[in-house]
Amino acid sequence: MSAAPEPNPPSLDRELNRPIPGSRKIYVQGSRTDVLVPMREVALGDGRSFVLYDTSGPYTDPKAVIELASGLPRIRERWIEERGDTDVQPQSASAHARERARHPRRFPTPPPIRRAKPGANVTQLHYARRGIITPEMEFAAIRENQLRERLAELGLPVRRQRSESFGLRFPEVVTPEFVREEIAAGRAILPANVNHPELEPMVIGRAFLTKINANIGTSALSSSIAEEVEKMIRAIRYGADTVMDLSTGRDIHETRAWIIRNSPVPIGTVPIYQALEKVGGRPEALSWEVFRDTLIEQAEQGVDYFTIHAGVRLAHIPLTARRVTGIVSRGGSIIAKWCLAHHRENFLYEHFEEICEIMKAYDVAFSLGDGLRPGSIADANDEAQFAELKTLGELTEIAWKHDVQVMIEGPGHVPMPLIRENMDKELAWCKEAPFYTLGPLVTDIAPGYDHIASAIGAALIGWYGTALLCYVTPKEHLGLPDKDDVREGIIAYKIAAHAADLAKGHPLAQARDDALSQARFAFRWRDQFHLALDPERAEAFHDQTLPKEAHKLAHFCSMCGPKFCSMQITQELRQYAEAEGLSAEAAIERGLAERAEAFRQGGGELYLEA
Amino acid sequence: MSAAPEPNPPSLDRELNRPIPGSRKIYVQGSRTDVLVPMREVALGDGRSFVLYDTSGPYTDPKAVIELASGLPRIRERWIEERGDTDVQPQSASAHARERARHPRRFPTPPPIRRAKPGANVTQLHYARRGIITPEMEFAAIRENQLRERLAELGLPVRRQRSESFGLRFPEVVTPEFVREEIAAGRAILPANVNHPELEPMVIGRAFLTKINANIGTSALSSSIAEEVEKMIRAIRYGADTVMDLSTGRDIHETRAWIIRNSPVPIGTVPIYQALEKVGGRPEALSWEVFRDTLIEQAEQGVDYFTIHAGVRLAHIPLTARRVTGIVSRGGSIIAKWCLAHHRENFLYEHFEEICEIMKAYDVAFSLGDGLRPGSIADANDEAQFAELKTLGELTEIAWKHDVQVMIEGPGHVPMPLIRENMDKELAWCKEAPFYTLGPLVTDIAPGYDHIASAIGAALIGWYGTALLCYVTPKEHLGLPDKDDVREGIIAYKIAAHAADLAKGHPLAQARDDALSQARFAFRWRDQFHLALDPERAEAFHDQTLPKEAHKLAHFCSMCGPKFCSMQITQELRQYAEAEGLSAEAAIERGLAERAEAFRQGGGELYLEA
Repeated sequence: MSAAPEPNPPSLDRELNRPIPGSRKIYVQGSRTDVLVPMREVALGDGRSFVLYDTSGPYTDPKAVIELASGLPRIRERWIEERGDTDVQPQSASAHARERARHPRRFPTPPPIRRAKPGANVTQLHYARRGIITPEMEFAAIRENQLRERLAELGLPVRRQRSESFGLRFPEVVTPEFVREEIAAGRAILPANVNHPELEPMVIGRAFLTKINANIGTSALSSSIAEEVEKMIRAIRYGADTVMDLSTGRDIHETRAWIIRNSPVPIGTVPIYQALEKVGGRPEALSWEVFRDTLIEQAEQGVDYFTIHAGVRLAHIPLTARRVTGIVSRGGSIIAKWCLAHHRENFLYEHFEEICEIMKAYDVAFSLGDGLRPGSIADANDEAQFAELKTLGELTEIAWKHDVQVMIEGPGHVPMPLIRENMDKELAWCKEAPFYTLGPLVTDIAPGYDHIASAIGAALIGWYGTALLCYVTPKEHLGLPDKDDVREGIIAYKIAAHAADLAKGHPLAQARDDALSQARFAFRWRDQFHLALDPERAEAFHDQTLPKEAHKLAHFCSMCGPKFCSMQITQELRQYAEAEGLSAEAAIERGLAERAEAFRQGGGELYLEA
Repeated sequence: MSAAPEPNPPSLDRELNRPIPGSRKIYVQGSRTDVLVPMREVALGDGRSFVLYDTSGPYTDPKAVIELASGLPRIRERWIEERGDTDVQPQSASAHARERARHPRRFPTPPPIRRAKPGANVTQLHYARRGIITPEMEFAAIRENQLRERLAELGLPVRRQRSESFGLRFPEVVTPEFVREEIAAGRAILPANVNHPELEPMVIGRAFLTKINANIGTSALSSSIAEEVEKMIRAIRYGADTVMDLSTGRDIHETRAWIIRNSPVPIGTVPIYQALEKVGGRPEALSWEVFRDTLIEQAEQGVDYFTIHAGVRLAHIPLTARRVTGIVSRGGSIIAKWCLAHHRENFLYEHFEEICEIMKAYDVAFSLGDGLRPGSIADANDEAQFAELKTLGELTEIAWKHDVQVMIEGPGHVPMPLIRENMDKELAWCKEAPFYTLGPLVTDIAPGYDHIASAIGAALIGWYGTALLCYVTPKEHLGLPDKDDVREGIIAYKIAAHAADLAKGHPLAQARDDALSQARFAFRWRDQFHLALDPERAEAFHDQTLPKEAHKLAHFCSMCGPKFCSMQITQELRQYAEAEGLSAEAAIERGLAERAEAFRQGGGELYLEA
């Protein structure tokens, strides 16, 4: 509980402020000079290059000057100003924020607070429905495309392994108009609070690349502001598309400010955690007034999406009574306790339209919380869970009436055969609003390895159509994740998300596998590392047994040693065919037959190295 | 390539020779006093106990005296002798084995070499088809049951979450007769070489618990005999059901002996690796004679199953020519090179009946190798792969004609939507012989984390019906696994196998999840650790943030801290209901309504700790 005073401003671990090995940062310009979309370009050993989606922000750009106390460049500032529908506020509308204004650990150089002009609605959904393509939408569209037009030149045509997308059709190219349409239809969200001008916009929806979320946050028992900011930077370096700050300890307000000001990805929160802190940790002491002040406080800081547990209705709570693990969502249990203590309907449900009014004044998206998600395999897909999901569908329609963006949270712990039902019901009841699931874990018996138990479920539900996968770290159920756990959790979820994209037949998914496998087959070890989800880990593992520089060119690895490499043997076959001017098939089928004897006499090597 | 001389005999790391935390070794007696089936009993904090399947052998029994140079007790010796169908051989029938008889690193106290009497067939399949229930079958049946009759007493009835088993029906109780029937039908195998009397018998088939295999083995570049024996012991400690020794470096013969003599689980090999060593690493120099001598050498040592790449036919090889990654199986590429150099049909295919003759003289099971498995997503489910699988189906029938046990190897790299086709074709073409797959990996882009990429595919194909899942470690594609990689690989696969059992509705699968989740909900931290797949990891992770002994009883963890624990809040609700003599539902629905005011006045705590 005790922590040494922190240096103010915190400084950044140098390890986090350097390029990703093998990748060069590039920026692709859109229709205006200030739409500059970051990507990672991997130069391959064979002269080609491959472009990767990049979540890592300016931290991996050697030209960027990083000063945590200044925050990132406000790339959206002009776009927001140009729209002319927000006002800068003279002071915070949150009592709590005003109280914290002189806190010694406050972020020193915050941007001005913006809010919609009276009567205005500043959500991306509102613009989309009016046919407006915002710079944010264009940015996200360029980002989704990943310069895919280059793939054909590279001999990596956009192609699809046989796939199953459950009725979903991907566009060949993601246009800004397509992004707008998906947002307008409610099938996608673009979380982008007007108070988060540092954001590099991205889009969440099942017609786009599957995204992943990383949770960070201080708890009452440990961690500091600097640690949390570093966790966020580490998370985006490994590929987190969004980050949730779930802090529950002291300095929540300040921690959040430091994180948002330095985050190029959308930041989500669960406002009830902080509201509970404000009332001394006693759920029954919560009130709409405290909660409302918290929403405004956080919206003014720039939080891009709020988890709101408005679907935990009083009548649902008894449905959890016979569960093996009851209510396992923190937010859900707080609300349940409040409801029971007062025997009243959930105040979040009752005040839902007022919440919408706040959301649309800043463009905060809803992440409608699944407070009754199952916490064990035994409780999966039960009445309580689906009663809440149905309510979330009703709330979605209310939010949409206000042009507020919505995604829906999902479980949890679900055995494999019951996963599909979650997706199907979500699509039906919540009208295809993006689904955002925690795992699901496909068994309860893997504490210490729940990133794996949940990546299995995440890959499946991603395939079925979930748009955003919330990571689970190896520490789930046991403790707070440290920086290594964040890395393990992220990569497990990048695997799940990519496997889902491959499975759905996303036009870009196969190309990266092909590029990596070509590199693997050609013994371009560095390319294999650089195209991997975690280049540093791949190289470090390789080097544990074959550390020498020369081995990066070796036609074998330590698994089989030089004499046994199967890939080498296949290559020899092909290279011989080429040298003889035969097609590979012909060489194998006919040419080699005739040459068999000559081979044996020549020592049996099909290919002699130059 | 150089290694210091090893101490002979190697001694065992003490870390590996101690009980698994929280588990007590028990032995369940069968119909005769020498059928003693080991299990792990976890004593729970609430006075109940839970029995777990145990692969760890005598190493985790504090009463066992372990001396690697003596080997494990020969528990099957009498059973084999009693059958009276084997003879002890005066000397090895393998020229190579005779040459190595005086090697300084040889295993010092080998058991006598046994072989079927002339005309006899000593396979478990042969006995099964004649209606004989062997002690091995009874042992495996008791093991599969895991004392399931106790579950009802524990309030953990054998029950099934809604599941999908694709037509498979599990028996309520696994009888020795059921094991016999499954073996007789070819749907299961019981790998048990007559020269492996140390074996604790187990059964592989989709009507039983899903099993996992761990690969170990020296390579030309590294590792020693002691290291490999320790890897085997580590692998079974974490839960490997079978182990393959894939050694390719020096001292292959001696390494194998040390492993088998100390292994309570079936040991598999790929004999062609050693045969290739014998001919100087030049595939084209291989011959049936060298291979045959190797089969006999290894069969005499007690190898329980052989991977034989007899399905790689000459005509299939051209089908791989346009693949992204060609032939990636070591065995497959060795055979391909031999076929092409000689332009002749695969000698393993041509001599298949002679191989069967050897297999049935020792009871070595076939693991029919998938030499043409896809090595990349792009190559999944292609013509080459399925042409080979069809051939494996033909070979299965030939092996069965000889009463030789068979399982079928499967891929590899396969995207999620194409996994099912592998299982369906295997069941159809190979007549339900057990399927044994490597992963499959659901993406190529995760080097360094391929245990996760492949556990996703393994869980799916296990659900569809694969009986044995071959693990993949984080070092796959990069290097040889070390002891930590073995642990990571095993646990990832225990997760996949258990998730598959849950999904299929195996009668025992749900009980462990329930027991662990009950412990989690009741804050019985130690029980949660002890029921976990890796008790030591679970406890260590918990203790990183809350190391004190008192926290093992705490009603919270470091994730949320004491004020926010959702489980605690739900518990309070229930305990209140109990104190008031209400059913949980009633308490919540009616009782609490009336008491709402009283609660608030009483401070809002629903439950005050004693």
